[in-house]
Amino acid sequence: MKVGDRHYRSLWTEKSGGPVHIIDQTRLPHALETRVLDSPEAAAEAIETMRVRGAPLIGVTAAFGIALAMSRDASDESLATCAARLAATRPTAVNLAWAIARMRGALQGLSAAARPAAAWFEAQAIAEQDAAINEAIGRHGLALVEREHAASGKPVDILTHCNAGWLAAVDWGTALAPIYMAHDAGIPVHVWVDETRPRNQGLLTAWELAGHGVPHTLVADNAGGHLMQRGRVDLVFVGADRVTRRGDVANKIGTYLKALAARANDVPFYVAVPTPTIDWEVGDALSDIPIEERAGEELRIVRGLDGSGRPGSIAIASDSVATANPAFDVTPAALVTGIITEKGVFAAKETALLELFPRERKSKAFLT
Amino acid sequence: MKVGDRHYRSLWTEKSGGPVHIIDQTRLPHALETRVLDSPEAAAEAIETMRVRGAPLIGVTAAFGIALAMSRDASDESLATCAARLAATRPTAVNLAWAIARMRGALQGLSAAARPAAAWFEAQAIAEQDAAINEAIGRHGLALVEREHAASGKPVDILTHCNAGWLAAVDWGTALAPIYMAHDAGIPVHVWVDETRPRNQGLLTAWELAGHGVPHTLVADNAGGHLMQRGRVDLVFVGADRVTRRGDVANKIGTYLKALAARANDVPFYVAVPTPTIDWEVGDALSDIPIEERAGEELRIVRGLDGSGRPGSIAIASDSVATANPAFDVTPAALVTGIITEKGVFAAKETALLELFPRERKSKAFLT
Repeated sequence: MKVGDRHYRSLWTEKSGGPVHIIDQTRLPHALETRVLDSPEAAAEAIETMRVRGAPLIGVTAAFGIALAMSRDASDESLATCAARLAATRPTAVNLAWAIARMRGALQGLSAAARPAAAWFEAQAIAEQDAAINEAIGRHGLALVEREHAASGKPVDILTHCNAGWLAAVDWGTALAPIYMAHDAGIPVHVWVDETRPRNQGLLTAWELAGHGVPHTLVADNAGGHLMQRGRVDLVFVGADRVTRRGDVANKIGTYLKALAARANDVPFYVAVPTPTIDWEVGDALSDIPIEERAGEELRIVRGLDGSGRPGSIAIASDSVATANPAFDVTPAALVTGIITEKGVFAAKETALLELFPRERKSKAFLT
Repeated sequence: MKVGDRHYRSLWTEKSGGPVHIIDQTRLPHALETRVLDSPEAAAEAIETMRVRGAPLIGVTAAFGIALAMSRDASDESLATCAARLAATRPTAVNLAWAIARMRGALQGLSAAARPAAAWFEAQAIAEQDAAINEAIGRHGLALVEREHAASGKPVDILTHCNAGWLAAVDWGTALAPIYMAHDAGIPVHVWVDETRPRNQGLLTAWELAGHGVPHTLVADNAGGHLMQRGRVDLVFVGADRVTRRGDVANKIGTYLKALAARANDVPFYVAVPTPTIDWEVGDALSDIPIEERAGEELRIVRGLDGSGRPGSIAIASDSVATANPAFDVTPAALVTGIITEKGVFAAKETALLELFPRERKSKAFLT
């Protein structure tokens, strides 16, 4: 999407064989810096430290990590080692395991000689597919925004949590794709951007929206309930790291609180995801989805710009303060108005989502 | 309460006539600094800039602000001017208007000569009464913690939002008073401390609890729903800035989200308030309680300690990012398990709370 006049993706390659270029999201919104990933280790490090983040982009980065490994050593051992290393980077988003499985499926039957070219082809295909999927999500979500605008005749206020924009995907984003399309189509939209402590991904969302010229307002995570209670939110759009076949949604910590507030105030709550984010294997979301516990430093240390405009950080609490930092929570399906996928908008119910299942099972993505 | 070995109050005087000493809460938790208030202007500035904060302490500080004014000029005009100035400092907490009305009631019938001594006497009486009220709130809340511990036989996990401890009152605090008493009585308690963006009053709560030796864990505001969903919260205790006769509760922004999560997960949600925090005049909380909108700088600028351990700040967003910063929200009575007052624990219902009303009406506090 646009950053001023220029079109960016969150990750790109200039040629097969690498290297891979990313926007270093730990530097945003204060600086737009790109970074080169030239090894599977660099890809794993970028995922772990959240230089790249967001369920779709994590998957794409892991796919390119495997491609980078294959260019160096295309043996079975290299493939297994690299896949295991990448799979261990982050536990909650299902796209990571999905992309790794898809890469292994594409490569396992091939000779070592054929693997490097096939790996780059497959990783690039996953990236292109992700962009196309998100564009389709945008079109389906756009219809919801159009309907809201047609009903009210007023600008549509949409609240979002975390960053489910193009930075979290390859392009477009999931939750933000419909917003970009609505804005481009001339529908007046305004976005309430949750700060999203402790990592403040809302600042990425605000940066994205500013780059594309979409009106938005940054608010503390605490404000969303109040805004909904006062009728200032028409729709909630969020992404997800994993959706179960029953429609339960694992997403950034705090999503559940917004879903409760949306339900209490009759605000439609939509989750926008590519179908690879649906985990058909998980039964009970609360017991079966691992919730990543991240370092307390994320709470204690806040990054930004110092008084001289230089990147810096400040400690809001000392190391002696005990912290807990669960990175995701589970929103029960009963609170979800609908799941926006590239195939359309579905009720957050097993009966509805299973319509997607057989087609997906037959696709190459699930032949692993 | 204790800060290590020493007992502190949030505000104190050494002699009638002043000055008034406060702990400067804008410096906490990074530095414990006291400050002298020697004029009504200084008192108003301290309230506006949140050097003193918390509904009970705001009221007490305003009372002393009037006493400081009377020592300088005890005319009717001085009383009216000073009362108007102090009343305009912050809009949401009812204690402010209550304390000012009580001071005016005590002073209006007196000669200018008699006013200074009477004003200091009355302000000191309000402060002492606040400490005694909070101690009584603590005893009534303690019974709830004891009951929870007796039922489970396990340490009691209590979640709190913002700071409703001794820093927000004169001593003890409201929501934290039962926690201090439970800890002192040997009941194992652990407190989940919401960070409470954007002003991070949770850091004050963590500082208070550490000073008194109460086990606690700092969490992002986003985490509370997840913790409740996983059965890791036994009770929620919060304070309030205003409670209506119907039991609706205006408190720090984000309280409403925690109340929704508590209800969804069958966690008892208690609001601890002195009876002066009950506003008998307000009908509809949503339409009649003014919600303070504070500066966007509170969101954009985060204070803490820099790499050298010196107090400093960092900008997480530039001035060009639009912000909204409502400081309070309203939790409907239906989500409140009970109101803990100095007179006992009451259902959040007009029929229950009105039991408090006639007695209060007859007291000096309401003869204004």
